[in-house]
Amino acid sequence: MQALVLGAEGPAVEEREPPRPDDEAVIRLSVGGVCATDLELCRGYMGFRGVLGHEFVGVVEASPDPRWIGRRVVGEINAACGRCATCRAGRPTHCPRRTVLGIQGRDGAFAERFTLPVRNLHAVPDGVMDEAAVFVEPLAAALRILDQVHVRPTDRVVVLGLGRLGQLCARVLALTGAQVTGVARSAAKRALLPAGIDAVAANDADGLPPADLVVDTTGAASGLALATARVRPGGTLVLKTTVHEAEAVQPTGWVIDEITVVGSRCGPFAPALRLLASGAVDPTPLITARYALADGLDALERAGEPGSLKVLLRP
Amino acid sequence: MQALVLGAEGPAVEEREPPRPDDEAVIRLSVGGVCATDLELCRGYMGFRGVLGHEFVGVVEASPDPRWIGRRVVGEINAACGRCATCRAGRPTHCPRRTVLGIQGRDGAFAERFTLPVRNLHAVPDGVMDEAAVFVEPLAAALRILDQVHVRPTDRVVVLGLGRLGQLCARVLALTGAQVTGVARSAAKRALLPAGIDAVAANDADGLPPADLVVDTTGAASGLALATARVRPGGTLVLKTTVHEAEAVQPTGWVIDEITVVGSRCGPFAPALRLLASGAVDPTPLITARYALADGLDALERAGEPGSLKVLLRP
Repeated sequence: MQALVLGAEGPAVEEREPPRPDDEAVIRLSVGGVCATDLELCRGYMGFRGVLGHEFVGVVEASPDPRWIGRRVVGEINAACGRCATCRAGRPTHCPRRTVLGIQGRDGAFAERFTLPVRNLHAVPDGVMDEAAVFVEPLAAALRILDQVHVRPTDRVVVLGLGRLGQLCARVLALTGAQVTGVARSAAKRALLPAGIDAVAANDADGLPPADLVVDTTGAASGLALATARVRPGGTLVLKTTVHEAEAVQPTGWVIDEITVVGSRCGPFAPALRLLASGAVDPTPLITARYALADGLDALERAGEPGSLKVLLRP
Repeated sequence: MQALVLGAEGPAVEEREPPRPDDEAVIRLSVGGVCATDLELCRGYMGFRGVLGHEFVGVVEASPDPRWIGRRVVGEINAACGRCATCRAGRPTHCPRRTVLGIQGRDGAFAERFTLPVRNLHAVPDGVMDEAAVFVEPLAAALRILDQVHVRPTDRVVVLGLGRLGQLCARVLALTGAQVTGVARSAAKRALLPAGIDAVAANDADGLPPADLVVDTTGAASGLALATARVRPGGTLVLKTTVHEAEAVQPTGWVIDEITVVGSRCGPFAPALRLLASGAVDPTPLITARYALADGLDALERAGEPGSLKVLLRP
């Protein structure tokens, strides 16, 4: 079968043996989504080697629990051991022995077939099309903010960066009734924000009043300082950016202004599926392009171009 | 009257005119306490010029509200405007127009007499001696952690640094029933921790299990990285350190491990007075030395020596 594999020489489309069903479900890929993390992995992040891809929707072909066979699914990407102290404490996404689909110790979804534990699967409601369902993983990551921070309808929220994840964060945060402003250099990305969300050019962000909550999705090491400049005393910064470079930080300002900085990663799939099913969030305007899996290298290149948002892959 | 004044040439004991009573209470100093912030101010922090000192207990000599005259008081150090949006939102300690006793725009308490708004004053209960009451301000700063973070009796807590503030933080956090470990290089400082709080040498801290909560009171730029190394995924770092230098931080670790970083400054005085009145916290073993105000320079020097904890000043 075909797979988009990250090797020592970089990514390549290769022929691989299909996975053998063991104690996990075998999923046939319907649509995959390229994420900024995939591009970071290609630059050496996490030292990953193997099949790329963690955003997908697919159909279960084989499963130790036969009730899943034939169902259309998305899947949580962290496969936890279920036995360690962290798992028993109810924090399986932080299991120190976890593998992560296409990111850490586990082949990913950019292949004709791949596997995940059955407990990671979520059935996709009939009303949610494949090209919306493929956004469940990043939409869940956006919802993770609301898991961690109490966002009030009266809050002023700034989202820095309007790439793939920033667009979804802005949409999810706006559902609280808060006054959300997205900040980005790109006029095209700002124009994608739906009605009810303000857009401000990065150069004009200094004029914004201090925000109760600032979410950094810039993907740049400088995002932390930019976010700090936008938050009010006593406010909250949410970090969604994973970058290679370290940034010089002066935490004294966080102490004097009593800022709370919240690292935020993977989120809950079930609420993401509900918001897609209800139509409260429509991610499909974020689709930039569609590629065949055989053209996976072109897809990665396209996803890395400025102005690119979600690039999809189909077998 | 005598006052310990920070001028362009550094700190000096000088003769000053006593303050004229205006719309604020005039307080006669009984005991003042030297804080690490005073030492930082002498090194240029905040660019402050004026009478130093923000930890005090004193007696009200004059007041627009005569009921305060003759009462023994401590006082909150932030004098807010009471009218701006931040004050009206219930965050007066973050008022952008605030002055801060002996730190910002307001002469401090290391003088025979000084002033504060009446609304900043708290009467000291009779059972609390002056040399305990002088710890109210840093004890309130330690209690601020419990205002900001839900610390559970089952939590594992690490306090990095066992100086003036670290000692108080460890004592307050231990009152929750949590398992508190203080980490410091100095064996003498570790030995000061009361029964029920574990002590570990800084060199042995790598052997500690990951903590739910880590409080950085090291006063060093490196404290942020040390604290990050001690916290469990999903855990919380509280920053109590204000330092000049910026530190290179790799916030990607905070994102992957979903760490929450909480800047923490001034805290509530009333609970601090209650804990002193009940005897639940006894700060007096932290007193290193007592000086006359006239010997204020010696007091600052002594407070800056390794191993020094609380240095007190009396007029």
